[in-house]
Amino acid sequence: MTQQDVTRRFPTVGDGSGLFSEDSFSREEVQLALRNRGMPLEALRYAITPAGMHYLLVHFDIPFVEVQDWSLSVGGLVSRPLSLSLDEIRARPARTLAVTMECAGNGRALLSPRSISQPWLLEAVSTAEWTGTPLKPLLEEAGMQDAATEILFTGLDQGVQGEEVQYYQRSLSIADATRDEVLLAYEMNGRPLEPQHGYPLRLIVPGWYGMTSVKWLDGIEAIDHHFDGYQMDQTYRYSQSADDPGQPVERILVRSLMIPPGIPDFLTRGRLVEAGNLVLTGRAWAGPLEISRVEFSEDGGESWSQTQLGAPVSAFAWREWTFQWDARPGRYTLFVRATDSQGNTQPVEQPWNYQGMGNNMVQRVEVLVE
Amino acid sequence: MTQQDVTRRFPTVGDGSGLFSEDSFSREEVQLALRNRGMPLEALRYAITPAGMHYLLVHFDIPFVEVQDWSLSVGGLVSRPLSLSLDEIRARPARTLAVTMECAGNGRALLSPRSISQPWLLEAVSTAEWTGTPLKPLLEEAGMQDAATEILFTGLDQGVQGEEVQYYQRSLSIADATRDEVLLAYEMNGRPLEPQHGYPLRLIVPGWYGMTSVKWLDGIEAIDHHFDGYQMDQTYRYSQSADDPGQPVERILVRSLMIPPGIPDFLTRGRLVEAGNLVLTGRAWAGPLEISRVEFSEDGGESWSQTQLGAPVSAFAWREWTFQWDARPGRYTLFVRATDSQGNTQPVEQPWNYQGMGNNMVQRVEVLVE
Repeated sequence: MTQQDVTRRFPTVGDGSGLFSEDSFSREEVQLALRNRGMPLEALRYAITPAGMHYLLVHFDIPFVEVQDWSLSVGGLVSRPLSLSLDEIRARPARTLAVTMECAGNGRALLSPRSISQPWLLEAVSTAEWTGTPLKPLLEEAGMQDAATEILFTGLDQGVQGEEVQYYQRSLSIADATRDEVLLAYEMNGRPLEPQHGYPLRLIVPGWYGMTSVKWLDGIEAIDHHFDGYQMDQTYRYSQSADDPGQPVERILVRSLMIPPGIPDFLTRGRLVEAGNLVLTGRAWAGPLEISRVEFSEDGGESWSQTQLGAPVSAFAWREWTFQWDARPGRYTLFVRATDSQGNTQPVEQPWNYQGMGNNMVQRVEVLVE
Repeated sequence: MTQQDVTRRFPTVGDGSGLFSEDSFSREEVQLALRNRGMPLEALRYAITPAGMHYLLVHFDIPFVEVQDWSLSVGGLVSRPLSLSLDEIRARPARTLAVTMECAGNGRALLSPRSISQPWLLEAVSTAEWTGTPLKPLLEEAGMQDAATEILFTGLDQGVQGEEVQYYQRSLSIADATRDEVLLAYEMNGRPLEPQHGYPLRLIVPGWYGMTSVKWLDGIEAIDHHFDGYQMDQTYRYSQSADDPGQPVERILVRSLMIPPGIPDFLTRGRLVEAGNLVLTGRAWAGPLEISRVEFSEDGGESWSQTQLGAPVSAFAWREWTFQWDARPGRYTLFVRATDSQGNTQPVEQPWNYQGMGNNMVQRVEVLVE
């Protein structure tokens, strides 16, 4: 099937603008929310998220891969094309790195109007220890040619998006692809990848939003032009309208989250907290940058207090913050906000963009203290 | 805090009837869909669902348990109350059993009007291999007294539901609790339970909907009366209105599902299938009963064809079905339906109930064949 074949095969959701203004959600959004999974915010207590609680965004279906039939091809503008089995990749030098990964669309459903897509609220972030082999030496071994300007990564996951039949594909500049921390990962938290996380092999690009870390890797290709595929030029853009090409979404922006204190109401997820002194805690991260400060507010952002920071889990992972809060009876909207080493602070009101990308507005936690 | 304290603390969702007629969904439903997770239907290919793809329904927060501080109490109407560490439980006779578990609310969001709760479509089912120690010998060892009529199971997960502050609690009759297959499970698929699946210990009641298999077990108590807690008498009921006590939800009803063929459209999840012969496959289950027949229809239930059945994975787990389908160009709504060993067949139209429990209407898969 070709691209033209699939034009207009699937019904348009909503009024065709690609946006919803309602506080209600479409069946398509719920369908995606049931397939893709957030990390319940109480899992912020773990420095390394248990694998089964790691957030997950899968564009198409989870491919079924039998490892004996699988190999990774490294080709394009290289002098020595490679085809590697998983055993051959595992025999190469290994590195383990804790990485905080976040979906570029995290927070999308807090915008109004919002893009019709996976309706993340705040939960599309997690940290795992990925083990794999660095990409750069592999590209060197293949003899990347001088003409190459980008590396194209192709996954085995296939589907229709934006009316194009496609395998999931993303590219990186040579400079970004050859950074030391970029891995071809075959283990997550010390165990082989589960199917949904990219078995047998996935790319890990620390510091970047998750769309870059292509799962179920099939091929790596050196190319001499800008790859203009759907997942590069049509989506994952900071844009102001359907027609605005905007800017590409790349590195993770500064953010902090809090473990909602007390106990939840099943349906509304509102929180009931016993009055008294309690330790509030959570995590903060800023992609490749350091966190320099995390502040807490109990009065909806009128006044802010410094929290205590723990050590970062790695150079590419979150760090813990804690705050001793004197919870007096009443209703509160708790805020937490982080500032990165370049002085960027999370906004209280989110600047809007059409696709709902890179939202890092401060979290609001409604609590009733009694 | 007492029960009275929490009355009306959290806002009512919708018009107060507890039902939504709209094809759109509330923010509260989406919030639940992002926390609770379905099994993507392509995972039906696995006889044993990879642990990280197993569906999950958590009423409150996932408790954090440090095993050295944890013990299981066995008390109430017993002659010798017990308090057991995880090591002591692991030292007891062990049994491993593959169990197909399904949420009682699976299919809820296909009803109209629907109960405002976790908005499952079809994906709240999975199969795992649970390892644990049988409950019956433990109750015998504790010396259950003749006056005992029910066994009450209490989890460590606490929250507010139906305006009651509660730990998650369910009871079973003595006859149901002492069936050979009822386990106190500490492993899932050969590994210690992850936190979200009930670490360090959970109940497994094969053949019953998932609400019975209490996670994060804290206590087991023999009692001489009907336990009338919220999770028994207020929810998990087949009822016709908010005031109708109805009947309790217990064993899993007959059902089959299909792996959606072809490739998906990202947003609508509509399927694009290449014309030609293909093998359709899926799984069927009926709680404690056997599956006697699975039928396929390409014409929306006008005509039905027999599928081929594989062996059941266990006496309490699903069995595979396959069907060789000649896919000719066109649009189809594919149906699959199963019949159990007592002659119960899945309905094409779902009988309605107020809480959206035990829905087992036939799956509809929209495909475009080209």
